[in-house]
Amino acid sequence: MSEKSKELEAPVFNIRTDLAIETREMIRKEQDVEIPGVKVNIEEDREKQIKVSWVEVLDAEGEKQMGKPVGNYVTIESPMMKENDIDAHEEIIKILAKQLVKILNLDDDAFILVVGLGNWNITPDALGPKVVSKIFVTRHLLDHIPEQVDESVRPVSAIAPGVMGLTGIETSEIIEGVVKKIKPDLVIAIDALASRKTSRVNTTIQIADTGVHPGSGVGNSRRGLNEETLGVPVIALGVPTVVDAATLVNDTMDHLIDAMLKEANPDKEFYKMLKNLNEQEKYQLIREVLNPYVGNLFVTPKEIDSVIDRLANIIANAINIALHPGIDLKDINRFTY
Amino acid sequence: MSEKSKELEAPVFNIRTDLAIETREMIRKEQDVEIPGVKVNIEEDREKQIKVSWVEVLDAEGEKQMGKPVGNYVTIESPMMKENDIDAHEEIIKILAKQLVKILNLDDDAFILVVGLGNWNITPDALGPKVVSKIFVTRHLLDHIPEQVDESVRPVSAIAPGVMGLTGIETSEIIEGVVKKIKPDLVIAIDALASRKTSRVNTTIQIADTGVHPGSGVGNSRRGLNEETLGVPVIALGVPTVVDAATLVNDTMDHLIDAMLKEANPDKEFYKMLKNLNEQEKYQLIREVLNPYVGNLFVTPKEIDSVIDRLANIIANAINIALHPGIDLKDINRFTY
Amino acid sequence: MSEKSKELEAPVFNIRTDLAIETREMIRKEQDVEIPGVKVNIEEDREKQIKVSWVEVLDAEGEKQMGKPVGNYVTIESPMMKENDIDAHEEIIKILAKQLVKILNLDDDAFILVVGLGNWNITPDALGPKVVSKIFVTRHLLDHIPEQVDESVRPVSAIAPGVMGLTGIETSEIIEGVVKKIKPDLVIAIDALASRKTSRVNTTIQIADTGVHPGSGVGNSRRGLNEETLGVPVIALGVPTVVDAATLVNDTMDHLIDAMLKEANPDKEFYKMLKNLNEQEKYQLIREVLNPYVGNLFVTPKEIDSVIDRLANIIANAINIALHPGIDLKDINRFTY
Amino acid sequence: MSEKSKELEAPVFNIRTDLAIETREMIRKEQDVEIPGVKVNIEEDREKQIKVSWVEVLDAEGEKQMGKPVGNYVTIESPMMKENDIDAHEEIIKILAKQLVKILNLDDDAFILVVGLGNWNITPDALGPKVVSKIFVTRHLLDHIPEQVDESVRPVSAIAPGVMGLTGIETSEIIEGVVKKIKPDLVIAIDALASRKTSRVNTTIQIADTGVHPGSGVGNSRRGLNEETLGVPVIALGVPTVVDAATLVNDTMDHLIDAMLKEANPDKEFYKMLKNLNEQEKYQLIREVLNPYVGNLFVTPKEIDSVIDRLANIIANAINIALHPGIDLKDINRFTY
Repeated sequence: MSEKSKELEAPVFNIRTDLAIETREMIRKEQDVEIPGVKVNIEEDREKQIKVSWVEVLDAEGEKQMGKPVGNYVTIESPMMKENDIDAHEEIIKILAKQLVKILNLDDDAFILVVGLGNWNITPDALGPKVVSKIFVTRHLLDHIPEQVDESVRPVSAIAPGVMGLTGIETSEIIEGVVKKIKPDLVIAIDALASRKTSRVNTTIQIADTGVHPGSGVGNSRRGLNEETLGVPVIALGVPTVVDAATLVNDTMDHLIDAMLKEANPDKEFYKMLKNLNEQEKYQLIREVLNPYVGNLFVTPKEIDSVIDRLANIIANAINIALHPGIDLKDINRFTY
Repeated sequence: MSEKSKELEAPVFNIRTDLAIETREMIRKEQDVEIPGVKVNIEEDREKQIKVSWVEVLDAEGEKQMGKPVGNYVTIESPMMKENDIDAHEEIIKILAKQLVKILNLDDDAFILVVGLGNWNITPDALGPKVVSKIFVTRHLLDHIPEQVDESVRPVSAIAPGVMGLTGIETSEIIEGVVKKIKPDLVIAIDALASRKTSRVNTTIQIADTGVHPGSGVGNSRRGLNEETLGVPVIALGVPTVVDAATLVNDTMDHLIDAMLKEANPDKEFYKMLKNLNEQEKYQLIREVLNPYVGNLFVTPKEIDSVIDRLANIIANAINIALHPGIDLKDINRFTY
Repeated sequence: MSEKSKELEAPVFNIRTDLAIETREMIRKEQDVEIPGVKVNIEEDREKQIKVSWVEVLDAEGEKQMGKPVGNYVTIESPMMKENDIDAHEEIIKILAKQLVKILNLDDDAFILVVGLGNWNITPDALGPKVVSKIFVTRHLLDHIPEQVDESVRPVSAIAPGVMGLTGIETSEIIEGVVKKIKPDLVIAIDALASRKTSRVNTTIQIADTGVHPGSGVGNSRRGLNEETLGVPVIALGVPTVVDAATLVNDTMDHLIDAMLKEANPDKEFYKMLKNLNEQEKYQLIREVLNPYVGNLFVTPKEIDSVIDRLANIIANAINIALHPGIDLKDINRFTY
Repeated sequence: MSEKSKELEAPVFNIRTDLAIETREMIRKEQDVEIPGVKVNIEEDREKQIKVSWVEVLDAEGEKQMGKPVGNYVTIESPMMKENDIDAHEEIIKILAKQLVKILNLDDDAFILVVGLGNWNITPDALGPKVVSKIFVTRHLLDHIPEQVDESVRPVSAIAPGVMGLTGIETSEIIEGVVKKIKPDLVIAIDALASRKTSRVNTTIQIADTGVHPGSGVGNSRRGLNEETLGVPVIALGVPTVVDAATLVNDTMDHLIDAMLKEANPDKEFYKMLKNLNEQEKYQLIREVLNPYVGNLFVTPKEIDSVIDRLANIIANAINIALHPGIDLKDINRFTY
């Protein structure tokens, strides 16, 4: 997560977030109409506590506004993802699988490579490798014992290449080499994402059909993993699994200011000053203050190991269902067992 | 770490910290003379970046002031503990072993039980169990094959009982049962501690000859592990491995205020207001604001798995050296390998 | 598994097996009537490939013949236990839970302590600790938040004390200390067992209401864990997870001899000689020959890590169902997830 | 290890072993002169219990006799490898590093890719991935922060691609893709090997400058990893970490026959019959007899997890020393810590 952002720069600010829904919220906070070049559709099931948002960046104008390439960004949000609740997870798996089917739009015989980015030795970074370990891989079965495989099964391979610090090789180099060799029709890349909202940690899954761009994700993908670099379409699927310390402080300050305003005698001057700082300036100020004292700290729930296991289980089950028409909810955990 | 503090309450504030050195600093910040009933001796090797502080709570007055029972509280501080630097670790091991020998003051044939508190499934909580797994246990060898054991070796046992959420049993009950059965002369209890300073995370080891008291440590020891409950002396050895989110925000606010004051046009009114809040009020305010939004979050370095391994290695090596006169620095890693 | 057997010695031989069903088979091989003082009931579902045998040692005569104390020894056998087949596992869980309910015969408010014997660092020895990690522990919930717990839930605690090599303490000492402190009504001890048949490895679960006796199991329980040592009834539940190399060679030699006999020109003399060796002599001969060359070797399936996980899952689910009337098959994996 | 051997077939037998030294012994057992086309040099330090053998296959005749391609096969044998003895390990590391330097014969600026074959989820198969995790990788440092790296450091990358069952991709495809992309000058491939002698398990390291050939190693390398397939030289470094059950029985039978011969009244006829079976026939007979009863069983020391850790540590330290002139014995464990 130390990568400097080299994304297209949004005009209003260049706050680092990988979530399109979050970028949109931050822009909307300052201007109260829909962003030009952006189409949004939100569906929420309040009872089941699941919200699905499609953000479509339509054109160059949307790209400029959002700082994200033209494409679809689907967000599934639910506070239940991180909880130990199998029933809620089944609902999320069902909805996630449905969105995946829609965005993947696969041919019957499409060959898919699932790539788990991140470092398996660092818990919040291990989401990608953990998902990969639960993917139902089939390409070798279809190659060597096709008669034993159900015909509805698509060829699927999966790899967790490890990060540059472990291999000495840029992740994108390994993936490029493998893709050139085995020639999949589509790559699904799983990654941990950066978010700017503490409340989104481990509660939000984003699927983007634009792939992984340099500076996004937590992997070392300085070149990115997308159609441009790999020559095949890349679906990026990610979850913000941590936020940095500055984000936490920033969030808290906002709530603190709101709380103070409600008090009898708020410190109006200070509030005005802080209010007049724009988001980016405030965040930078906090980062600068924090840095010498706390260094490279992240904010995480204490039971992060279990939370990552739950998320990996949800995502792997949804991918298995979305890729193989013969697999459905009754097979949940059958391949991730 | 969800335990409500039931420590002796210090008069000035009851901010939750397990570190005597930190309590003292907080009191001293408000009153600039040494605390009555407290004796302090600090030695620092600036080149090696290691600082050793002995805080002795002498009497009832010191107890009242510090909110800690009469006894010795030794702190070894070094930013190198959490770094991947074997040479620095050897220095720390040497100094830690020396302090342990002094505070343990063991008879030649003393039988020691090392207890690793905490939950092995939660990385920052796993310090105790990890240390236990690296302790050179000898009691069974001395019982069953004494002729094969060097005579300088003391009888040592070690147990990591697991936390109440895993066993359904209070940790203190397990330890009391085992102590009553095997009758050690001394218990060394390893625990992760609570700190109120972000900069102390994974850089400070405290040894206290007063044992573990209810509400201190992260274990579920509602009854505490001390001479009163176990019937034998208990040395508590702990490290703050995380801080809660409120501590981080609090620290940052302090630095932010300092930074603002140095600016051309500081917001004097706000500063004065915050300055007039005492520490405890400020921390409580932040906790209240944070709680509904971020819940049970902790602040941790991203490479926490490696950091805990390093700390466990340092502590286990130091204990092995301190307990067995025949083991010294050249045997480092020989029993933790 | 290095423990010398100190069991009651059976008259015919003292071959080391913890399985009553196996002892019986070996005796029956030599004498073709039912063993005096022993009652046997076998039910087999050939389609589902599950066989349940109740061996009851009735009296002193049975004890003398079998080398096992008076009591019930229930064996559930199925080759599907070690396979990756969730449907088959559900059947086994159902049947295992049923046998457990029958043999446990619990009062409504009985307090149960589940003990996982064995070493979590050695895969085939880790069955006990793995089961414990999946037990639904409730005692602390009933103590501290009874209003949030369903009233059908019994108080359950669970502990995996680790082996003597890790703790320096005999397992039985830890358990005795804890039992005396927390006073359960019943102990269920999970252990890996010794078997003398290669085909029984990871396909047989034995439940015995006589507890763990010195020399049985793989734990270091030199004193045993039974009503005599602990003061409360002990149900032992075990699986042979490995066989020693000599058992494998012995089994193979038997099959080899049978194969040779079917050949045109068998080596009658050699066969007669081997046939005339009794079982125990043959096994001893093989052990002596093997020992200097191969040392302490065990025979295991290559995928032992997965097999132990499957067995732990089956056993933990069955115990959770058997202990809590409100839990049934639909909750499978809910507490072991 | 289920791969059918497709090696060059040796005339005398085609018993499956990856160890040249073992092939030679088996041939020599039947013919008492040195094998034509093969040159052998053996050095043994009896006190330190280390034996180094260079077997050189010189020409087509040697190739035909040995069933191994022309090249060098260096074996380091020591029973201490599998023991918990750091001093002995240091000796082995020193000698292994020396052989590696000799056989690698590297240019000062050679770029090396270390490949860890095998499955990290199966302990005896995890040697390759474990070694990779302890390799000092430097290529990314030399690329991005050359000024911080000592000039004696060579560029090194390392990858553990996982087996086909996990990825759905043949290992050789992943490695070919990566090699084509990053263009190393040399590949070192770490693998678990097949042996036909129980006593060689975890006591023998073989280095071969001929690479990995189809059917050798335990990886899924149906195409092999060698200069022919990768376009760069490949050094194969392997250890037999298990033997199959048939090998154990075979070994035992040999010892049993020898033992019987020494007895007063040996069964001469049977002995003659077995003696007249050639090695391959005997092994096949045992396999056939074993198969229906015991299936896919392997023989392993019970403490296999620790043994694999020790071997990985020895090999990784030796490779780190051999690759980087600035690293020597005093840095042992510095990069594998």
